[in-house]
Amino acid sequence: MLPSGVSYSERMRDISGSAIRAIFKVLGRPGIISFAGGNPSGDALPHEACAELSREALLRDGKRILQYGATEGYPPFLESLLSYLKESYRFPVEKPNLLPLSGSTQGVDLLCKAFTDPGDTVLVESPTFLGNMQTLRIYQQKLVPVESDEHGVMLDALENAVKRTHPKLLYIIPTFQNPTGCTLAAERREPIAKMAEKYGFLVMEDDPYRDLRYAGEPLPSIKSYDSSDHVVYMGSFSKIISPGMRVGYMVAHEEIIAKCAIGKQGSDLHTANLTQAVVDGYLRKGLLKPHIQEIIPAYRDKLNAMLAELSTFPEGVTYTRPEGGLFIFVTMPEGFNAGAAFKEAVERGVAYVPGTSFYPEGGHENTLRLNFSNSTLEQIHDGMGILRDLFASKLK
Amino acid sequence: MLPSGVSYSERMRDISGSAIRAIFKVLGRPGIISFAGGNPSGDALPHEACAELSREALLRDGKRILQYGATEGYPPFLESLLSYLKESYRFPVEKPNLLPLSGSTQGVDLLCKAFTDPGDTVLVESPTFLGNMQTLRIYQQKLVPVESDEHGVMLDALENAVKRTHPKLLYIIPTFQNPTGCTLAAERREPIAKMAEKYGFLVMEDDPYRDLRYAGEPLPSIKSYDSSDHVVYMGSFSKIISPGMRVGYMVAHEEIIAKCAIGKQGSDLHTANLTQAVVDGYLRKGLLKPHIQEIIPAYRDKLNAMLAELSTFPEGVTYTRPEGGLFIFVTMPEGFNAGAAFKEAVERGVAYVPGTSFYPEGGHENTLRLNFSNSTLEQIHDGMGILRDLFASKLK
Repeated sequence: MLPSGVSYSERMRDISGSAIRAIFKVLGRPGIISFAGGNPSGDALPHEACAELSREALLRDGKRILQYGATEGYPPFLESLLSYLKESYRFPVEKPNLLPLSGSTQGVDLLCKAFTDPGDTVLVESPTFLGNMQTLRIYQQKLVPVESDEHGVMLDALENAVKRTHPKLLYIIPTFQNPTGCTLAAERREPIAKMAEKYGFLVMEDDPYRDLRYAGEPLPSIKSYDSSDHVVYMGSFSKIISPGMRVGYMVAHEEIIAKCAIGKQGSDLHTANLTQAVVDGYLRKGLLKPHIQEIIPAYRDKLNAMLAELSTFPEGVTYTRPEGGLFIFVTMPEGFNAGAAFKEAVERGVAYVPGTSFYPEGGHENTLRLNFSNSTLEQIHDGMGILRDLFASKLK
Repeated sequence: MLPSGVSYSERMRDISGSAIRAIFKVLGRPGIISFAGGNPSGDALPHEACAELSREALLRDGKRILQYGATEGYPPFLESLLSYLKESYRFPVEKPNLLPLSGSTQGVDLLCKAFTDPGDTVLVESPTFLGNMQTLRIYQQKLVPVESDEHGVMLDALENAVKRTHPKLLYIIPTFQNPTGCTLAAERREPIAKMAEKYGFLVMEDDPYRDLRYAGEPLPSIKSYDSSDHVVYMGSFSKIISPGMRVGYMVAHEEIIAKCAIGKQGSDLHTANLTQAVVDGYLRKGLLKPHIQEIIPAYRDKLNAMLAELSTFPEGVTYTRPEGGLFIFVTMPEGFNAGAAFKEAVERGVAYVPGTSFYPEGGHENTLRLNFSNSTLEQIHDGMGILRDLFASKLK
């Protein structure tokens, strides 16, 4: 019970926490095979390199790293981030277009803070990442789902929704989407940038999985078609170096960056200099590309192993076939309830996330999200076997 | 100019950034003597110890540190934080009462998010820390100043303000306050906790300077008199280990913690595990107490040196005589304008912060804040000499 006379704000009264984070808490049980999280593989976390990099950085520049830093970022990190972006991305970017973030979710928080009022509309893919739906809901945004297929949001549905709802923001994960693993088709990208310009809304292009591509060719970002500064690109080192360091970044028009920096002053003041310095060292020493090349084969094997297991699931079970990222999205036959089956699955030693949590409008009880990156091939074999048997018994 | 069709939120439209952070930017000039910041001394930042601690932590527990962590904190840090609090503080505390923060300002952000609606009232000392005033303003709070003297907020004024405005929150810095350096008198502490219970508001007790005491005896926190869970205690390692690591914490009733954790999920998800691990190592190895004992004599000398300089300032200049912390607050004779003199002071090579920025109601143009911790004794001598001459010339 809250202390006497104290009550929750209107914005938080009905917000009860991310379903995934609640699931995490029950997963402490040893031996459970978890396809539930969105965690990179432990094998892919370069802790020895980071140990040396953090030590080196603190010995070399420790007085600056331990002192208050600029909200706009630790200067060496800004330099190496800029080089990385210029080399890897096709959009123009300079330092005033950059803001380091404490994870890319903070970008959603800051953009909502700076550019939305309660009751405004945000368009989202359906399904979409539930963590950021929660952030949008805390800002009392109306979430309007836009129909998506295996190639991402459908342009007609998007334009209809824009005309109908006059959104402030579109939130979109273009590459190896969470939860579907699908990638926005190349030919849908430029039209989204142009629509944002035409109708005057901001696109939050959240692209943390981009570098985890196991097949096919990289596509240009929506931001690369943005000639009118309506696209805010959010990247992250969470999936390719470490999520626990909480280092992401935002690329946007400098006035957008400046206002978001003011919002960030009022929250964490700046992202820890030490974690920025470790990522800086990683980029500066050229460790990132070889690291990504090193981790991709194992991730590819896991994805393929899980897809192979899914091909033996009962008829009527469909699933996405991602070219990268961390997730596969499964659609069971109508009538199957993934939430109800979840408890039983956990009893048998396997966890996943029921898909309904990812739909802003709810429903879709017959869907679920599987993460393959954080399990071994053996766990994938065993865990998927358990799910196959359980699901088959439910479909009888 | 913002992209076409895009506009700022109501909450951020008139927020233009902290005056201090803007001053920081002009202080890049080499050779300037800055009494403007709130920075610990570079000498007091233990970068070599942190270099070893970060390396050790990553080699020992790197897979967990680099992986996603719990919003509720890195488990070893929670343990050592709990021991530290139990040893040093007189209030009861267990793990569900703790939330690690990315700096204690984040606590203000999360409490506003969870417990205030736009238009609510927050009582603040007058003057008070301008960074957190900005955070409160972003949440569209009405800031009502409560008259304070050299012993902190005046109880009659506080109770009158409470009865008149029905506040949701009281924001108070009880020890070596920013900007005044004053400490809330012992006999005013329990009545504040009781008032919060009686009238049903939360006290945000922001206590980052507590361990920097150079004279006198430590006082019990307001939280130690809190038998009804109306006090939220916010601490920080910024002033005693490193501000650049952004590690603070909140102590509160577990329902308050749980709701703030949900708010934190939507912002930075969790404070970086690596910085929590470094602070954990610092606490666990017993380095904090000797470190504080080591840095205090130099800080005391700097405080005393600045006070000695102030005693030679023209008649009619008054100033606080803190027993610790980082700041002295100066009141010049009526008619003096510290903002107008600032530009000239910078031209002569010395910076401070005009006091008006710290008053929620504005005015008080004849006041200024001086920081002594981040200058050498020589810089204090030279810089204060320059200010004395400049100010004397203005008072003629």
